[in-house]
Amino acid sequence: MDSLDEKFLKLGAKNAPGQEVRHNDSAVNYKGKQLTGTPVDFSHGDVDAFTPIPDTLDAFNDGVRIGGEQAYTEYRGSKTIRVDVARKLTNFTGVSTEINADENLILTPGTQGALFLAMGSTVTKGDKVAIVVPDYFANRKLVEFFEGEIVPIELDYIKTTERAGINLNQLEDAFKSGVKLFIFSNPNNPTGVIYSQDEIRDIATLAQKFNVMVIADELYSRQIFDGKEFVHLFAQNIIDRDNIITIMGPSKTESLSGYRLGVAFGSAKIIDRMEKLQAIVSLRTAGYNQAVMKKWFAEPEGWMDKRILQHQAIRDDLISKLRFSSGFEVRPTEAGSYLFPKLPNIDISLEELVKVLRLKASVIVTPGTEFGSQFTNSFRINFSQDHQSAVSAIDRLIKVVEEYHK
Amino acid sequence: MDSLDEKFLKLGAKNAPGQEVRHNDSAVNYKGKQLTGTPVDFSHGDVDAFTPIPDTLDAFNDGVRIGGEQAYTEYRGSKTIRVDVARKLTNFTGVSTEINADENLILTPGTQGALFLAMGSTVTKGDKVAIVVPDYFANRKLVEFFEGEIVPIELDYIKTTERAGINLNQLEDAFKSGVKLFIFSNPNNPTGVIYSQDEIRDIATLAQKFNVMVIADELYSRQIFDGKEFVHLFAQNIIDRDNIITIMGPSKTESLSGYRLGVAFGSAKIIDRMEKLQAIVSLRTAGYNQAVMKKWFAEPEGWMDKRILQHQAIRDDLISKLRFSSGFEVRPTEAGSYLFPKLPNIDISLEELVKVLRLKASVIVTPGTEFGSQFTNSFRINFSQDHQSAVSAIDRLIKVVEEYHK
Repeated sequence: MDSLDEKFLKLGAKNAPGQEVRHNDSAVNYKGKQLTGTPVDFSHGDVDAFTPIPDTLDAFNDGVRIGGEQAYTEYRGSKTIRVDVARKLTNFTGVSTEINADENLILTPGTQGALFLAMGSTVTKGDKVAIVVPDYFANRKLVEFFEGEIVPIELDYIKTTERAGINLNQLEDAFKSGVKLFIFSNPNNPTGVIYSQDEIRDIATLAQKFNVMVIADELYSRQIFDGKEFVHLFAQNIIDRDNIITIMGPSKTESLSGYRLGVAFGSAKIIDRMEKLQAIVSLRTAGYNQAVMKKWFAEPEGWMDKRILQHQAIRDDLISKLRFSSGFEVRPTEAGSYLFPKLPNIDISLEELVKVLRLKASVIVTPGTEFGSQFTNSFRINFSQDHQSAVSAIDRLIKVVEEYHK
Repeated sequence: MDSLDEKFLKLGAKNAPGQEVRHNDSAVNYKGKQLTGTPVDFSHGDVDAFTPIPDTLDAFNDGVRIGGEQAYTEYRGSKTIRVDVARKLTNFTGVSTEINADENLILTPGTQGALFLAMGSTVTKGDKVAIVVPDYFANRKLVEFFEGEIVPIELDYIKTTERAGINLNQLEDAFKSGVKLFIFSNPNNPTGVIYSQDEIRDIATLAQKFNVMVIADELYSRQIFDGKEFVHLFAQNIIDRDNIITIMGPSKTESLSGYRLGVAFGSAKIIDRMEKLQAIVSLRTAGYNQAVMKKWFAEPEGWMDKRILQHQAIRDDLISKLRFSSGFEVRPTEAGSYLFPKLPNIDISLEELVKVLRLKASVIVTPGTEFGSQFTNSFRINFSQDHQSAVSAIDRLIKVVEEYHK
């Protein structure tokens, strides 16, 4: 096995959300009969249930009508669109100095594109990278692809309230040991917890003290439940501006994933590198698609509030169902559309359970092991689904788990 | 300077097509007065002059109407679309065994996306990679990004007729010296020459003999002039099927660059790796955009023939203008929309000339040095432009060059 074989073995995408169709299911048996009900794919949100921001397709069509100028933008994206997005993000984050559209912002093919470009611009062979466990599964894969060394930081999400639960002592030790980059999602994926004001201030203070670069993935920061406070790391003005990149995008709450749009803003030096890398990765975010960004942060009055309340209501129903069944442990989502419950003891493996859920109950969930090898008794669901279908699917999920309960 | 600084210095995108807006022009002076005329950006094709395949926007809108299924495809792209594209490429290339849509094909964000994924799946630190000089500038940058070692292969395009002019002895020596991968564009970018049947057979025979992986970038293989023959490397059945990846896409002749669509087909092992890499690079080719592939190879009767003849006519006019002026050397384009003329001796540098052309004559060209450091007296133009504007722009270009003629 050569070094590329090894590298790509670690990049396994088989259990990644959306790849279930590539599984070979011939060897899977399950107890009892198939459970009937509308199939629900909890591995990602259902954009048919929560549809894209109104008039986004019109914005795309307008982009096509603009023609060549919209098709061939700078690699970092159309200047007009960047100016508009920079202004909106300045307002949203409440940062004191305006984000400079020329120097400090790049449009990317989704937030995944932003993460890849940001990591490719900051991580090289042997670099120590601190990542939270659990956190978005691609963070780990990206460090491995760029041959960095992962330094895991615990998140005690399940026992904690009022804060995310990051182990700050561990973070400080990691930074002392020479970590070059810290990457984390806030709100956290997969748990849906928000880092508190204190946690953000402490992270920023440590990063500044030890000169650590930080990538903050704030993809879900517009979908905050129960009126909780959300603190943007870079708006704290604690970390040197050249040492922070923030990532956002309209793929989740705004349901624009099919357009592949994201944005990274922060360090001019890193944004420059990201553009150079973008030039060889895929040239630019699809030109016509960029025009859709005009509709972001320009939703109709009340649209976002309503969407947040609808998700909150689904969350509440799913959590009461899970808590009513014995053995599940779950911390309520504070932001975003994820739940990351712990399972009761069952007599099959997590991998088998995931398959049984899919085949017997028509319910797709993402195994916890995607977020850290220790999460062998957790699973993630994205509850941005048709409300009634999600509730029925959780009923079926609970029924299956109870059948395999030890 | 750390190793990432060095790496990104080599990735400079400043002189790349489309990035001219980011230049600081304060220090540029030029002889005489500004020349008037419609500005022409020869760095890429003008999709307002040669518009996208009819009804592509309808196909996109249909994709959006499909909804979630089209937004969240497998990372390698929608199965329906892959089946359709595989069938069309089987017919187009005349390969004897049908291309398998499940195992041997991936949709990518443009052909640039395909190149990046293919190189990232085959090149690791220290690997020797043979690249043709001149060839598409990103080939060199990709090898550098993945820390391979470039082994240059000469293309004597300007003195040669009836074949592209690749130095096969040099290629054999390179393969003997342990080259792992050979990447080349056919038709060649920037010269527009086609590799002959003999050249393709010899390349294939050498690659097979020395077990070298080959990436063939055939982006321009539908736009062939003067009824010339075009031979698809992989359809020769000489190279082991696991050792070849072919890349195509509708960004050029079909003017769909604003949608960022491409395709790679070949080795199942490499396509698998490319999908894993795609999963962390940007998840997938934008879902709705994939639907546009339905219109590829399904153009209205006569549409492609007409487009080819229109480009051939522009080529002929530009070449006679260049040849009428003393000192230019140019080989006529055999396929695609590029010309790569050699300049007469001038008393300013190529970099200065490119700036003067832009500021004095409103003509943007790509400096030859993007395609190899030795091409200090060549430039590339993409003549997929409004016919009359292109002719006037070449008149202005010739006038400027004559003013600086030694």
